[in-house]
This record gives sequence, C-alpha cells and structure tokens, in this order.
Amino acid sequence: MMEMKKTFASDNYAGVHPEIMDALVKANVGHDGSYGNDAFTKEAISKFRQLFGASAEVHFVYNGTGANVLGLSALTSSFHSVICSEGAHINVDESTAPEKFLGCKLLIIPSKDGKIYPDEIEAKIIRVGDQHHPQAKVISVSQSTEYGTVYSVEEIKALSAIAKKHNLYFHMDGSRISNAAVSLNRDFRDFTVDAGVDILSFGGTKNGMMFGEAILIFNPELSRNFSFIRKQGMQLHSKMRFISAQFLALLSNDLWKRNAIHANQMAKRLETGLRKFHPIKITQSVDANGIFAIFPAPVIPTLQQAGFFYIWNEKLSEARLMCSWDTTVQDVDSFIDGVGKTLGK
Amino acid sequence: MMEMKKTFASDNYAGVHPEIMDALVKANVGHDGSYGNDAFTKEAISKFRQLFGASAEVHFVYNGTGANVLGLSALTSSFHSVICSEGAHINVDESTAPEKFLGCKLLIIPSKDGKIYPDEIEAKIIRVGDQHHPQAKVISVSQSTEYGTVYSVEEIKALSAIAKKHNLYFHMDGSRISNAAVSLNRDFRDFTVDAGVDILSFGGTKNGMMFGEAILIFNPELSRNFSFIRKQGMQLHSKMRFISAQFLALLSNDLWKRNAIHANQMAKRLETGLRKFHPIKITQSVDANGIFAIFPAPVIPTLQQAGFFYIWNEKLSEARLMCSWDTTVQDVDSFIDGVGKTLGK
Amino acid sequence: MMEMKKTFASDNYAGVHPEIMDALVKANVGHDGSYGNDAFTKEAISKFRQLFGASAEVHFVYNGTGANVLGLSALTSSFHSVICSEGAHINVDESTAPEKFLGCKLLIIPSKDGKIYPDEIEAKIIRVGDQHHPQAKVISVSQSTEYGTVYSVEEIKALSAIAKKHNLYFHMDGSRISNAAVSLNRDFRDFTVDAGVDILSFGGTKNGMMFGEAILIFNPELSRNFSFIRKQGMQLHSKMRFISAQFLALLSNDLWKRNAIHANQMAKRLETGLRKFHPIKITQSVDANGIFAIFPAPVIPTLQQAGFFYIWNEKLSEARLMCSWDTTVQDVDSFIDGVGKTLGK
Amino acid sequence: MMEMKKTFASDNYAGVHPEIMDALVKANVGHDGSYGNDAFTKEAISKFRQLFGASAEVHFVYNGTGANVLGLSALTSSFHSVICSEGAHINVDESTAPEKFLGCKLLIIPSKDGKIYPDEIEAKIIRVGDQHHPQAKVISVSQSTEYGTVYSVEEIKALSAIAKKHNLYFHMDGSRISNAAVSLNRDFRDFTVDAGVDILSFGGTKNGMMFGEAILIFNPELSRNFSFIRKQGMQLHSKMRFISAQFLALLSNDLWKRNAIHANQMAKRLETGLRKFHPIKITQSVDANGIFAIFPAPVIPTLQQAGFFYIWNEKLSEARLMCSWDTTVQDVDSFIDGVGKTLGK
Repeated sequence: MMEMKKTFASDNYAGVHPEIMDALVKANVGHDGSYGNDAFTKEAISKFRQLFGASAEVHFVYNGTGANVLGLSALTSSFHSVICSEGAHINVDESTAPEKFLGCKLLIIPSKDGKIYPDEIEAKIIRVGDQHHPQAKVISVSQSTEYGTVYSVEEIKALSAIAKKHNLYFHMDGSRISNAAVSLNRDFRDFTVDAGVDILSFGGTKNGMMFGEAILIFNPELSRNFSFIRKQGMQLHSKMRFISAQFLALLSNDLWKRNAIHANQMAKRLETGLRKFHPIKITQSVDANGIFAIFPAPVIPTLQQAGFFYIWNEKLSEARLMCSWDTTVQDVDSFIDGVGKTLGK
Repeated sequence: MMEMKKTFASDNYAGVHPEIMDALVKANVGHDGSYGNDAFTKEAISKFRQLFGASAEVHFVYNGTGANVLGLSALTSSFHSVICSEGAHINVDESTAPEKFLGCKLLIIPSKDGKIYPDEIEAKIIRVGDQHHPQAKVISVSQSTEYGTVYSVEEIKALSAIAKKHNLYFHMDGSRISNAAVSLNRDFRDFTVDAGVDILSFGGTKNGMMFGEAILIFNPELSRNFSFIRKQGMQLHSKMRFISAQFLALLSNDLWKRNAIHANQMAKRLETGLRKFHPIKITQSVDANGIFAIFPAPVIPTLQQAGFFYIWNEKLSEARLMCSWDTTVQDVDSFIDGVGKTLGK
Repeated sequence: MMEMKKTFASDNYAGVHPEIMDALVKANVGHDGSYGNDAFTKEAISKFRQLFGASAEVHFVYNGTGANVLGLSALTSSFHSVICSEGAHINVDESTAPEKFLGCKLLIIPSKDGKIYPDEIEAKIIRVGDQHHPQAKVISVSQSTEYGTVYSVEEIKALSAIAKKHNLYFHMDGSRISNAAVSLNRDFRDFTVDAGVDILSFGGTKNGMMFGEAILIFNPELSRNFSFIRKQGMQLHSKMRFISAQFLALLSNDLWKRNAIHANQMAKRLETGLRKFHPIKITQSVDANGIFAIFPAPVIPTLQQAGFFYIWNEKLSEARLMCSWDTTVQDVDSFIDGVGKTLGK
Repeated sequence: MMEMKKTFASDNYAGVHPEIMDALVKANVGHDGSYGNDAFTKEAISKFRQLFGASAEVHFVYNGTGANVLGLSALTSSFHSVICSEGAHINVDESTAPEKFLGCKLLIIPSKDGKIYPDEIEAKIIRVGDQHHPQAKVISVSQSTEYGTVYSVEEIKALSAIAKKHNLYFHMDGSRISNAAVSLNRDFRDFTVDAGVDILSFGGTKNGMMFGEAILIFNPELSRNFSFIRKQGMQLHSKMRFISAQFLALLSNDLWKRNAIHANQMAKRLETGLRKFHPIKITQSVDANGIFAIFPAPVIPTLQQAGFFYIWNEKLSEARLMCSWDTTVQDVDSFIDGVGKTLGK
C-alpha cells in the first residue's frame, strides 16, 4: 500500500501507537481465557482503578458509540430523555443508535462552544412526573467537546449539582478525555468521579489504540446488570485480552498523557501558525486537540492538499482540523507553510 | 504474564495467527481514511469477491453476534420470525440481542446434530398472512454447526429450495465457515451464494484473527441500507484498516484454508485418540474442529487439567473439545496420554 | 346491517352485555377528567381492590395484547426471558409484540393441555448469571388456558413456589380469568394475589365489555413507573371513564360471575351434547368456556353452517368452539341438532 | 356520579355525541366477525373512501398516539429521522413512544404558531447519505396544530413539494382534522391526499367519539404490511365493529362537520368575548377550536372556577381553552360573564 500523507482529518486517521502495537504482539502468546477471563483484563482494570478509585467498575467495549449507548442504557428506562448539546456525538454522529437501543429522546440544547450550561439544562427539565412527557433523567456532556473545548472542573461540578438537584444522572462522553485531562492539568478523578460523574466513556481508539473503549461506572448499583447489557449490545469481545493489553499499555508509563500532551501541543502550534494569517479566523478556544477555523472559501481545496481536513460548516467556510498522537512538528509547519504560500504571504 | 497451558476450551482461547499479526503491524503506517475509506478495505473486499463472486457486498463488523444480528436485520421486519436450530448461537449464546435488535421471534427446531431439515422447517411455516401470528421470513443455519457437524452441499441446497418455495430468506452463520469449506473440500461459493444463501456471516476471529467478522450480502437489494444498519448497530469501526488488513491476510496465500485444515486435522486426531478408550463415547460426527464426547464423570476434573475443556451437557457428562489453528500434534497427543493415564490404560 | 347468526367462533364475536352498554350510556353525561382523572375510574379501582386486596395497583388498557405486554414490561429487562406454554397467547397470537416491546425471548414449553408444570419450568432455568444466555425472569401462565383448561389453586401455588425459589416473577394472562374463577368456584384472590401472582391481566372484553382490560399489580414496587410504561405503550385512553364505567358495571352485582357461569354452563351443555356422537372426540377437559373436539373432516363445512367455529388443528380435524355470555341454550341445542342430522343420527 | 361542570380543559373532557352513542347501541346486536371482519368496518371504510378517494387504505386503531406512531412506522426505518414542530404532539405529549417504537429521532423545529415552514425544514435536511447521521425521511405536521392554528391548502402543498424534492414522506397528525377542514371550508381531500400527504391520522375521539382513530394511507405500497404493524403495535381491536360503527355515524349526515363547525364557532365566540377585556391578550390566531390567551396571573384561579382550563405556559400566564362539540353558547357566555366579574368590568 502507498502511504497516505499525514492529515488533519481526524484522530481516527492515525494508526496505532508503537507501544500499543508492541503490547498486542506481546499479548499474543498461547491461550488465554475469553470474554475478559484473562490476566490482561484483570490488570487493565486494576490500572483504571488506580486512576479512578477502587470502586470503579470497568467494562471494555469496541467503539465510542457502543460505549456511549451502553453507558446511557445503564442510566435510563425507555420513557426517559437525555439532555445534551446539539452538537453532541450521540446526537449527530451515532445514527439513531441511542434512540433505537434506549428508546429515549435526546433533549437538545443549542451550543456555540460545544458546552451546555446549568440554566439551559434546568429549562429543559419540565413536566416532571407527567406521564405524557419524556422524563429527563440524564445530563450527558462530552469532555473534551466536539468543538475542541474543555469544561473546567468547576463547570463540571456545577452540572453535577444540577443533576443531583433534579435527581438526574450525569454521563460523560470521554472519547477524548485524555486530551481534556492534560488541558486541565488535573487528575482524571478531579473532573469525573470526584466531580459527580456517574458513568464515563473512556476513549482509547482516538488516543493511539487500534480498537476499544472503556465504560467506567462509579456507582456499583448501576453496574449490576451491565455484563448483560454489553453482551446484548453486541459489544462483548471474545479475545478480550487484545483490548485489555492495549489499555494496559495506554495506562502504563503515562502513555495516555504523553500522547494527549503531544496532540494538544500540535493543535496549539497549528493555532499559533494560523493566527498569523489575517483572513483566517479561529472560531473556538483551542483547549484540546482540535482547531476550528474559517478559511477563505476559494483556497480551501488547495489547503486540503497541503494537509487534508474536513469542512465543519459549509456556509461559514469553517473547517475542523484535528491533531493526534502522531502529528509531527513538521506536519504542522509544512501545513502552515502551505497556507502561507496559498494565501500569498 | 504467565502463559496459559494450551486448552480445548474454545477457538476463542487461541491468539492471533502470526501472518495476521504481521499484517496488522504492516498496516500501521501513517494515516489512512477511516470507516472503510482506505486501501486495505478495498483490497479485502476484492479478495472476498474473488471467492464469492463479483456481486457480493461485503461489510466488516466487530464480532459474531454483530454479524448475525445485523445480517438478519437486513432480512426482516419486526413482525417476522427466524427459523433456526434450538442450539443455534443466535438462540442460546447471544443473550437476547436478536429479539431486542430485530423485534423478531426465533422459531426453534430441536436438533440432535445441530442441523435442521426441510420437513421440520415446513412444519414451522404456519398461519402465513395471519396478522396475529409471527410471520416466518428467514431460515438461519450455522455452517459448521455448534455441534461440529457440517451440512453437505445437497443439504444446503434442499434448505434453500424450501426457503424459495415459501418466500423466505436464507441466512448462514459462518463463524466457522472455513472449517466447513475444508471439511466439504469445496469452494465457499458452492455451499453459499451458488446454493441460494442470501446473507452470510463469515467468521474471522475463530480462525486466527484478533477481531472482526464479515457480512456478505449476495443480493444487492438487501445491501442498500446496510451501512446505516451497521452504524446504528454500533458495529462500524473507525480505524477500519485494522479489520481489513486482517481479512486481507486471512484470504491471502490460503491462510484461511491452512488454518482450517489444521484445526480439523487436530480434531480428527483427537477423535481417533479418544475412540481408543472404551468408556469414552464420541456423540457427534467430527466434521470440523469440534469433538463432543461423553467421559466418565469422576475423571473429568483430572482430564480438564491435562487440557481444559468445557462441559456441554452436565447430565450426560458430555464435553465439547475445540481445536484451533494453534493446536499442535503435541497438544493432542499429550492430552490423549493424560486421558490414558487417568483411565488407567 | 343484517344480523349474523350466533357462532362458536370466539368470545370476541359476542357483543356488549346490556348492563355494560347501559353503564356506558349513563356515564355519558357532561364533562369529566381525562386519562383516569375521573370518578368512574376511582370507583372501578376501588371495586377491584375489594376483590383483590387494598394494595392492588390497577391500570386500565385497551386490549389483551396491551395488558400482557405492558404487564411483562414491568417485570423484565431486555436481556431476560419469559417462560410460557407453546400455545400461550403471547407466543402465538400477539404477533411479535412481546419481542419488540420487551426485547425478551419467550422460552417455550410444549403442552398438550395448555398448562405448564414445575419440572418442565425448572428444566428451562439454565445458565443463570451467564451473560451470553437469555436470563429466565418470568413464568407466565394463562388462566383459563388457551385450551379451555383451568389450573387448580394448588397448581398455581406450585408454580408460584418455583418462581420464588428461582427469583422469578409470576405473571398471569387472565383474559378469561372470570371463567376460571367460576370453574374453580373460588375467589379471585385465592389463585392470584394470595397464590403468589405478581401481575395479572384481567380480561374484560371477552366477558361482555366493548373494549378494555385491566392490569393488576400486586407488588407496589413493580407499579412505580407503570403509568409511563402504559403511555409509552400507546395504551392510555383519554376518555378513560368509558373503560372504567364498563369495569364498574362488570364488577357490580356479580355481572362478571353471572356472565362467566353462563358461558361455562353453555360449554358444558355443548360438551354433553357432542359426547353423544361417537365419531366426535372431545380432546381437552372442558373446564371453562371452550370445547376442543375432533370432528369427521368431511362434515366440518356443514357443521360450520349450523354454528360457525374455527379449526384449531387442521391435521387432526380438531376444532375449537367458544361459548360466551350471550350463547343461548337454544344456540347450543340447535347446533347439537345440526350435528346429529349431519352425522345421520 | 355527580356531573362535572362543563370545562374548557380539553376536547377529551367531553363525552360521546348522542348520534354516536346511538350507533354503538344499534351495533350491539348478535354476533359479528372480529378484528375488522364485519359489515360495519366495510361500510365505514367505504365512507372514508367517499371522502378521501377510492385508493385510500383505512385502518382503525385505539388512540392518537397509536395512530401517529404506527403511521410513522409505515414510513420509516429505524435509522431515519422525522421532522416536526417543537410543540408537536409526537414530540411533547406521547412520552417517548415514537423513539421506542420507531427507533427514529425527531428533528425539532422551534415554532411560534405551531406550524413549520419550508425553509426551516430544508435547513434540517443535512448530511444525506452519511451513515453516521440520522437520515431525514418524514415531514410530520399537525392539522389543526397544537396551537389552534390551521395550515392553508397552499402551505400544505408547499410542504409537500419540499418532501417530494428531498424524497421524504409527508405525514399529517389529524387528531383535529375536522376542525381544520371546516376552518378552511375545504374538502378533506384538498389538503390531504390531493395535496401530497402520504399518511394521515384521522381523529375521532376529540370530535365526539368514545374511542378510536383512523389511519389513512394514500399510497398502497405503504399499506402492504400495515396489518402486521398494527397488531404488533397492540392497536388491533377485537370487537372492531364498535370502532367502525362510531366512524360510520361520524361520517354520516355530516356529523363530523356539524361537530367541528360548532366547536370552532364556540371558540370564535369565546375569542370575541375575551377580546373585550384589555388585560387579556389572545396569542394565537383562533383558526379552529382552541384559544390561547394571556390572563392576569392573580385572577387565573378564580377564572378556572368559572370554567376550568389548563395553563399552557406558566411563565407567560398563557392559558389554553378548548371548545368541543358539546360546548354550549351558555357555557361560553357564562364564562365570559365570570371573566368580566373577576376583572371588575
């Protein structure tokens, strides 16, 4: 195969980090128990508990949609609704998997920065106890958000307080949670379990894994039936050691952190480079590994050849550029060069 | 990690074949398109079409449950029923994923050898057009079956004829289809697309892959909406090249065949060895890579130490022993030795 | 419209009992609260509590399928299975509503008399706690059964004991429960709440109502979310007073009992009449209002003109004849006459 | 029972029109075929075809939620989305029945007058063919709307044109369609089948029936499997003649029209009366039988005693007052009197 030029299209375009690939190769010895009944899984769970506390229940699944939908499934009955941002992955990028699997409605809050806020949420919690109306039961946020922004610890705690006040659960889509953690320079615990999150999707694939995400349940009662939910949700892997060994590598020697720091730094470098060009407008705070920028429409095709990226909002000529663990300084600088040349500067 | 002794527990206890692991390492270069928009996927699909015909539509998913449930989803409306064997994987080992995802009922046929037969099937097709009654719409068979038996080409064609006669679809769970193909010594086509199968789950994981199964749709009309079904079914992988590269390796240089021939041969060797001991009774025809045998109950724990296996039927002291691509002659002979010693022969 | 000749086709062919029609007319005065917020509903619930105990939660729905499916919905999660007879209404006459709405599998027990028994049930409770396998959670019986037979109080208690022993719930489809009660000559309580039934579908339509069934929940915990389940299940009536007024009439002045006694007596009279003819074979114990009989195949069309009935089992020439609240002595005797003439006796 | 004072709470608080009650009594003669196999059903369908054209397929169900959800079920696969107004009954008053039964997402358009418009709809039709995103498939409107407004024939045709242009279906929730027809002074056909509507929920209960709604399918292909959908959806009535006889009466002698004209006239009279009082503000065009009005908050409890009504928007002190077939001139005038006295005028 011919190698594809490095892109800013998605953190899913990147491959597998060498340490993780190495862990896969090393895990491939002889026989081992299936469906999680193996030593790698036990050890990976133990690593998660070092980071998130001893009472965290940890379940591995295949992908982010699986992690989000099954996590929400542990929190809802079918007559409930889930409050989330209009741009939430569960709302716009997971087909109608949430509706089909949960039977629930998503209650949508328009958002300019990808975040949702307490007042907006409370306005959605209406007709409580009215059998005719979908009953709000979960607040779901993405951390970092689909717009590359990151909730502060205080913002998370404020949302959690709203959830508690109204007897709702608090769910976090953490498909890029490592990027959020290094952005906040805080331990995972500080803005998840200790801030009142009930269930977390912990992302692996976008941070250097081949496949696999983790669902962390911080309330044991919610975990009681989860193995059945996962199996029924078609997300139970037979040769589980090959997900677990990846997480073991990701959580060892701070690989999760090194990867995320790097991706975030590349995003900052890209932001800095782009800000030099006046026709370009950065539209979101670059808190994590994504940059949202408005380019002059006519030059976009040329820029995409310098380093492919997707258009986020056609009308605004707004693009999304994602950096990942394997984005290099040279990738960024060469793209910036290309932008400069294209813009004639 | 300490290496686990080789077992006869399951073809899921085996690891990844070295040629496939090698393919994964080689695919891990630079960036590539996500969700199947990559060169590996195109090439893997092309390989499948060489084996199954140019009109086969090929979709990769994570696991066997996903492959079966989503394949059946393309064939059914929620008021339908699916005819299958009592011991079918979709009936006893996939939680209630089929019922939840499809809304359909499984119409069960008791079976001693894992197969179902035309007369039994026709007896299940009742009350056609009656709005009150689940409407039979699919015949689903496993090839090879959960009992290690293999349908002959003629048997498959007879089932297909029944399906056509009654306007039903024909689905095949081929999680061990390679073992069936080498058992029959026939091309895949002969007992699938050319024999009237509409949709096939093609197994990868049990034949040496790390993860991934393929859904083959032989009727383009049935494939029309399949990408939406897969995404909604939470079975679309982002870094798809890592499933595709595995299939590419599996279908190259006859790896699928070499692995399956070997596993089947080991099963035959195991059968031959066990038949020497009179208290042991082989209960099913050893057509593929599984042996079903009744052992004297008191010695079973000792035998399980010589090479772990699961009890299939507690009452009968009937065990299931699975061979896989990595079972060695020495594994088999050493187990047979252990059996001999345990039985005092 | 021309009046249709009285038939033995179904208790659904009968109309509405005059006392119930009268109650509907009387309830049709002025305005009243909707969705159950009316005086008729309160009073009807009170009547039910006189019969079933003060802690019974009572919810009205439209039809039997709604009553069964929603009742089971309060007892199950989607990874569960429900044990029932092969001929159970939920298995063969409610399309795949249970599978679609619950996501559960029905675990079927073949039955010659419509009943299921403790040993058979225990044989179905397997692989408890195994995430791969549907988890048995409910025993569901029909009282009276679809074969016109009636469980004794002791039989019900034995089933209930099995349910308790295995931590299952006990559901009763009582679409003809009044016929069962008068057959047993016992209070409703004796073979429902006091015998360990958790949720009961109480039939109204087949015993002289125009529409409407009741769901009785004997465990308040199970009732907690039921109003949401009913609304989501599309079974909440707006002008509820018109269901409630019917139940009020049915439960007043022993109308339920008078209707059921009469229907059962007519069935007995029909049985006695048919037994006089040797070619005719009664195949089930006539405990309630249904008779199952094998007729000589060639004369069936002629007999159906004397009083229409449905063929239950084509191969056996077995017919089902249902008596209802409005079947008259003359209807029965005239049919018996017709049979005699047709058979040349 | 003590008679409740006439209210403006809901058209569901009204009882059954005498002509309809009379039809029920008259239909209650002898036996008749069940599940729609009776003469009343044939005749009622024939009446509908006189109004909507000979190719209309007509199916009776129990209630409005059933009519809407099952109608939409015939138009969608589970990966689709349905575009509707934020205040649509299917969005806010049917629990999450649409999501659970269809698996689809509702795409919501904010609306001040209950209507949705072509430009807003087109803005929602995005990412067509993108497997990750819910695929817009249906435009659903309420006629008359939940705000008492009525789409003009031209407005309906413009929406239909948008649907056709984008290969979407067009669904109409006509729970108050008779009020719309008399408001427009047009035949039903003009703003339904002839204007491009694919499936219509035709309301019966709110216009004087005891229970029952009709689903009209104007495209035979869409009707093919509908009987199975209805049965599975738990909306098939056994003693169907008692729904059909009501529709027969409703569609005979222009009863539907007389009732709707009357209710609309009462609403106009109420509007006229309220407009005399300056502190009261009518907030929506009174096109049909509902009035939306802002009252001075402190007097609302007193006004509710003069004739009960519900508060629609607590913050705005906006109330909804519904008139029905049985609202009398005296009811309205007496309420207006009460308002005047309360406001001291």
